[in-house]
Amino acid sequence: MLTLFTAPGTCALATHIALAEASADYALRRVKFAENEQRSPEYLTINPLGRVPALVTPDGALTETPALLVFVAQTHPTARLAPLSDPVAFAKLQSFNSYLASTVHVAHAHRPRASRWADDAAAIEAMRAKVPETMTAAFTLIENALEGPWVLGEQYSVSDGYLFTLTRWLASDSVDVENFPKVKAHHDRMAERPAVKRALAEEAAL
Amino acid sequence: MLTLFTAPGTCALATHIALAEASADYALRRVKFAENEQRSPEYLTINPLGRVPALVTPDGALTETPALLVFVAQTHPTARLAPLSDPVAFAKLQSFNSYLASTVHVAHAHRPRASRWADDAAAIEAMRAKVPETMTAAFTLIENALEGPWVLGEQYSVSDGYLFTLTRWLASDSVDVENFPKVKAHHDRMAERPAVKRALAEEAAL
Repeated sequence: MLTLFTAPGTCALATHIALAEASADYALRRVKFAENEQRSPEYLTINPLGRVPALVTPDGALTETPALLVFVAQTHPTARLAPLSDPVAFAKLQSFNSYLASTVHVAHAHRPRASRWADDAAAIEAMRAKVPETMTAAFTLIENALEGPWVLGEQYSVSDGYLFTLTRWLASDSVDVENFPKVKAHHDRMAERPAVKRALAEEAAL
Repeated sequence: MLTLFTAPGTCALATHIALAEASADYALRRVKFAENEQRSPEYLTINPLGRVPALVTPDGALTETPALLVFVAQTHPTARLAPLSDPVAFAKLQSFNSYLASTVHVAHAHRPRASRWADDAAAIEAMRAKVPETMTAAFTLIENALEGPWVLGEQYSVSDGYLFTLTRWLASDSVDVENFPKVKAHHDRMAERPAVKRALAEEAAL
């Protein structure tokens, strides 16, 4: 049994989709951000960063979306969620996930979490103001790189759930997904998958 | 043959160290930041992000440090640079690398690259001013998590070269590494490794 510590609207959805795609044996635990539960002593023993997602396994808690996505793929090989034995293809999957984590998610975070990087109100406002520009730049690169129905081309992978998750943030960042027709088509293709429908329904019921 | 596109003082050193540890067949190409070569049309075909590192393989160019580190480990298995077949241990390695890429490197980048996230000079100055605090917080977590001689404990891995690379940035961020005795000991242990000495010498000669 795996337990995903999650919160609606966060990047934990990517791991949630991977678990659903893998038909994994999982449970969900909502971390109540409104009650600041992510900073509670109990939760900090699971993830010292005080963030979601965390995945509690029989061998301990694991964190960071790119690590969790590959963990789910590696422990559920029949679901074929990552080209684990093809080093070049696997590096492309990892590169895409790393780009989402360290550039795209970070660009987005400068709107809701700008206070991580500066203290004064004017600076925080200046960071927020630039988010539509940085998210547009990031998704322009993604749009230009998308060649197939899925991130890796013909092969569906954990990267698709991760892209879907961040695409859903565009509207809140005042970026129109219609500017990126391939990303929009990818989003709509994802929304039809049973595992994605299941994850979204489970998240809504938390 | 692998060609690493690199620049001195950047996170490309982590991949460089991994290549040296693996006794890989590699060449180095310096990307001249002073001449803005990372934004040249030629380099953007290798890495559309205009950043280092990029690793050109016989099967195309790969990017993003966490992806390159695992690629080097996976293609040079006798060097035993990652616990590839142990999903939990591999997830811990990946989690650490992802934390360095998306939190620690990002915290550092708010000093030299703050203009990525805001346009006005006062905001950029406010971001720079907070870097010692965010880097101290990040390295406090790392210090508390370090349990063995290496990041994963007894087993040396590609994560060690990555941590070493970012530890070397602390002084430029006005953070004293002496505040983190385990990180400092890790740094000094790394500096004694022949592969690390080789990578640093090769970087200095570029």
